[in-house]
Amino acid sequence: MFWILFGIFLAACFAAGSTGGLFPPGAWYRELKKPSWTPPDWVFPVTWTTLYICMATAGARVALSDGNAIAMALWSLQIALNGLWTPVFFGLQNIRLGMIVLALLWLSVAATLVALWMVDWIAGALFVPYLVWVTIAGGLNASVWRLNPDIAR
Amino acid sequence: MFWILFGIFLAACFAAGSTGGLFPPGAWYRELKKPSWTPPDWVFPVTWTTLYICMATAGARVALSDGNAIAMALWSLQIALNGLWTPVFFGLQNIRLGMIVLALLWLSVAATLVALWMVDWIAGALFVPYLVWVTIAGGLNASVWRLNPDIAR
Repeated sequence: MFWILFGIFLAACFAAGSTGGLFPPGAWYRELKKPSWTPPDWVFPVTWTTLYICMATAGARVALSDGNAIAMALWSLQIALNGLWTPVFFGLQNIRLGMIVLALLWLSVAATLVALWMVDWIAGALFVPYLVWVTIAGGLNASVWRLNPDIAR
Repeated sequence: MFWILFGIFLAACFAAGSTGGLFPPGAWYRELKKPSWTPPDWVFPVTWTTLYICMATAGARVALSDGNAIAMALWSLQIALNGLWTPVFFGLQNIRLGMIVLALLWLSVAATLVALWMVDWIAGALFVPYLVWVTIAGGLNASVWRLNPDIAR
């Protein structure tokens, strides 16, 4: 049962993550001024794949637990927001709206982490790297906004 | 508790649905040949809002029930796929890939309907209009593909 659940949650992660392949960073992103600590492009898919495995494990563990209502609702919310950033940032090339999406994603990931932890601390801990990464992504988005005031809408 | 859960699931629906506002049907869509039974544009947000209320109700009911693991995992999967179609169809203007997304969405909605029903038949029934609407949307996407062979990629 665990592995079926893991597979479904992982499919949800990759559905959200497929936007990364559909709206790849193109010439527009390459020409933006970026902070010196910007990770190279290959880091993003590698990191996300690792995070997806953690997120799916957390989801499957808590799905099998009693009292999972809030945690499961929030898991759904964060995955719906997760798939939104790439089309907004790379598709619409809207840096400011990307920042808003990331802020909402950060809040939903933090809330999911807490709700998961209250059911099963291992599941909560599996969301910690995800929250750290969304924080870094938020810093990157904010820096790009600051460094490109003429392009940022 | 029901209303908190309802609110979180509804927020997930609107996060996915926000792609409809971010990637609106523009000149490209207006100039496509469409079947005579194509609903007018205003029908889509009205229908989706109604469906979101049904989907959030179903999610909240089953979140509070025992044995909800598969249903909750599938609810997450369908909402992750739900937000994907609009950026693919209207954003990338990729009719063929839109058809693939709709097929995956249809399968995930059908599976979620069955899994919800097995926990709580009312929740399953609340997904019936959603499955009907995704079927109609699939028919529309397929017709647009057939009627615009030169545009469809």
